[in-house]
Amino acid sequence: MVPQWIIEKKRDGLALDDAEIRDFIADYTSGDIPDYQMAALAMAIYFQGMNPEEVSILTDAMMRSGDLVDTSAIALPKADKHSTGGIGDKVSLILAPLVACCGVVVPMLSGRGLGITGGTLDKLESIPGYRTDLDIAGFLSVLNRCGCSIVGQTGRLAPADKKLYALRDVTGTVPSIPLIAASIMSKKLAEGMDALVLDVKWGRGAFMKTPTLAHELAQTMVSIGKAMDKGMAAIVTDMNQPLGRTAGNALEIIETIETLRGDGPADLVLLTIELSAHMLALTGVSPELDLARERLTAALTDGRALAKFKEMVALQGGDIAAIDDPARLPTAQQQIACPAPATGFIAAADAEAIGRACIALGAGRQRVEDSVDHAVGVSQILKIGEPVREGQAMAVIHANSDATLEAALPFMKQAFRIATDPVAIPNLIGEVIT
Amino acid sequence: MVPQWIIEKKRDGLALDDAEIRDFIADYTSGDIPDYQMAALAMAIYFQGMNPEEVSILTDAMMRSGDLVDTSAIALPKADKHSTGGIGDKVSLILAPLVACCGVVVPMLSGRGLGITGGTLDKLESIPGYRTDLDIAGFLSVLNRCGCSIVGQTGRLAPADKKLYALRDVTGTVPSIPLIAASIMSKKLAEGMDALVLDVKWGRGAFMKTPTLAHELAQTMVSIGKAMDKGMAAIVTDMNQPLGRTAGNALEIIETIETLRGDGPADLVLLTIELSAHMLALTGVSPELDLARERLTAALTDGRALAKFKEMVALQGGDIAAIDDPARLPTAQQQIACPAPATGFIAAADAEAIGRACIALGAGRQRVEDSVDHAVGVSQILKIGEPVREGQAMAVIHANSDATLEAALPFMKQAFRIATDPVAIPNLIGEVIT
Repeated sequence: MVPQWIIEKKRDGLALDDAEIRDFIADYTSGDIPDYQMAALAMAIYFQGMNPEEVSILTDAMMRSGDLVDTSAIALPKADKHSTGGIGDKVSLILAPLVACCGVVVPMLSGRGLGITGGTLDKLESIPGYRTDLDIAGFLSVLNRCGCSIVGQTGRLAPADKKLYALRDVTGTVPSIPLIAASIMSKKLAEGMDALVLDVKWGRGAFMKTPTLAHELAQTMVSIGKAMDKGMAAIVTDMNQPLGRTAGNALEIIETIETLRGDGPADLVLLTIELSAHMLALTGVSPELDLARERLTAALTDGRALAKFKEMVALQGGDIAAIDDPARLPTAQQQIACPAPATGFIAAADAEAIGRACIALGAGRQRVEDSVDHAVGVSQILKIGEPVREGQAMAVIHANSDATLEAALPFMKQAFRIATDPVAIPNLIGEVIT
Repeated sequence: MVPQWIIEKKRDGLALDDAEIRDFIADYTSGDIPDYQMAALAMAIYFQGMNPEEVSILTDAMMRSGDLVDTSAIALPKADKHSTGGIGDKVSLILAPLVACCGVVVPMLSGRGLGITGGTLDKLESIPGYRTDLDIAGFLSVLNRCGCSIVGQTGRLAPADKKLYALRDVTGTVPSIPLIAASIMSKKLAEGMDALVLDVKWGRGAFMKTPTLAHELAQTMVSIGKAMDKGMAAIVTDMNQPLGRTAGNALEIIETIETLRGDGPADLVLLTIELSAHMLALTGVSPELDLARERLTAALTDGRALAKFKEMVALQGGDIAAIDDPARLPTAQQQIACPAPATGFIAAADAEAIGRACIALGAGRQRVEDSVDHAVGVSQILKIGEPVREGQAMAVIHANSDATLEAALPFMKQAFRIATDPVAIPNLIGEVIT
């Protein structure tokens, strides 16, 4: 195999075969193929794309470059959910215990936040003592005992993806649907689940800026999963405004607890139930979506999901006293309301601007090596369509310094737009791809 | 300047500005920008192209990455010719002394052969003692004394191009017109001439396979030269069959000497006079092409060009006894005729197949580090349109071993096609771009 012939073949718009893709990825992972040839191939893929078969082979090759989690000893059906990332997206924290208490095991390997996108691990680490760095044996042990576990991805999981992702970041080859899909799926499918539900977001706070791009990515990922005999569903959702009313690590844990107590914001509850219902349906635990929604709503409101969440937190070393009394979670020194400049209806609550405000406050990372402040963020965010009076808070900023507050304020002012006439509530949930 | 932003800009089809191109090339040459970012940019340029201004800036940046030959002390007009390479192309060897004896200095930095393309330096080194490795001072001294000099490119000439060319070779980014044009012109324009005439070849034995591609490359290079205030002309020529009747280093020197004695094959004489005439016209030495052709034809037939050639060879250490008596040039052990299988007219004398036969005989290089056998090659090649009788030689193979002869024979058999009806002589000279 001569690497440049493979690059030339893709450059000329031809499909690569199984051996070509697998050899290229194996030799790239081992270092036998240098970064410059991988960079040229990635740019050729950016322009020429890949057909569904090629993407499935690429995903499988990257997945098999590292460890696979062996969940075969767990008899119950296993399912997971993946979101392409947004602002205020705490669905995983609610969904994992909720689905687990309906009889589906949720083995969830999760990531940290980067840029305006929050990370599930950062949110969980707001809970004193919670350990996200379990090894695979520890992860399996929590799964066996309570049916769900949320931990970080180990270094040996899809190392080809880790290497390729870092290269794409500096070679202008990030926004390629086949490469994005293969990157996400190579890590997710290493978890060893039977079914996977995808939340593919579009909008100002999402990586995909249009529903069309989100659809294309969703379709590509569903096709990869099906090629590997996984039950698959993807929901295209709107990420122009934050999900729920909070953004920021501890603030989102508080909203998670409220939701698990049956008192969550409508959009967050709706999306969590919907994604969870597909997990129950795909694993055959509750094949009809309507019945699945009913079962899930009951478990969310009668306290079972909250109990399961506390069980998981305790097994992973977290202080459940902080769940019972969220005042024990990290709290910021200043809480500053953002007053509405006029009376009317919220026409925009820009997820991107609110995400940038959170970064400015220290809640997120600009670079991988940055640390995060768990206490800061934004709460009580008004949503599109809600009425507002002049001077009423459209959101509350939680800051730990005057400097970060000053940096965040312009973004928060930019984020909201008020209309005189009533504004329709946008559809959160769009197309479902199965 | 963040390199990936520049890559992304080109990837998205936007034009790069002066500073972006110059900084990228400077940092790539110094090693501050790694190969993988240059590879990604090269692939983006392959797909998105470059406008004439971008290509000119890229060429200038690569040219200025190394030494420039300062010919300002030479009062006479200076011009050079560049060919994109073919089989049997010995034009430079005749043109340099011919143009020099008409009052235009020819500072010619030349290359070695690679693949089926012969190299001027390899041909000259067939002459015992001829030195192609003069430094710039030695080159200028020969130019001052006899008006022409043909030497190799020094290592300090356009190092950015040297580095980029090696990278393109292994990343599938060779066939990009802007990158090819910038590569050729960055080396040529470092010579410090007033005018440059280009022989852009298309066909089976050329890098460009169609007249359209050759036209595009010619147009791009003419535009680069004009942006640098050089007199420019490009001639698109047919390289489906070899130029002249010989291919191979010493064999081409013999044909060169015959041509300088006024006894050259028609196609070789025609093209040499045509390219030379544009050099005389562009430098103002003989502004009318018809008069220029007359003056050149006179100098070629009355022995002045031959005398100038011998003067240059002597100044560069070559044995002029070998010019007077070509039997002193390297001679192969075996001369084997390729008999025509039928009576008729030559319909094809495939330059690519004859080039491959020469490689098989050892006349050329498959890799840069290969050495060449100066004695071997092919002579007495019949040209398209010429009549042939069954059993008559269509060419004579010069070989130094049975093994290389065996390897070359299939290519030679493949090369010729004989038609029953008369075949029209194809036009050697196509479009002229000024």
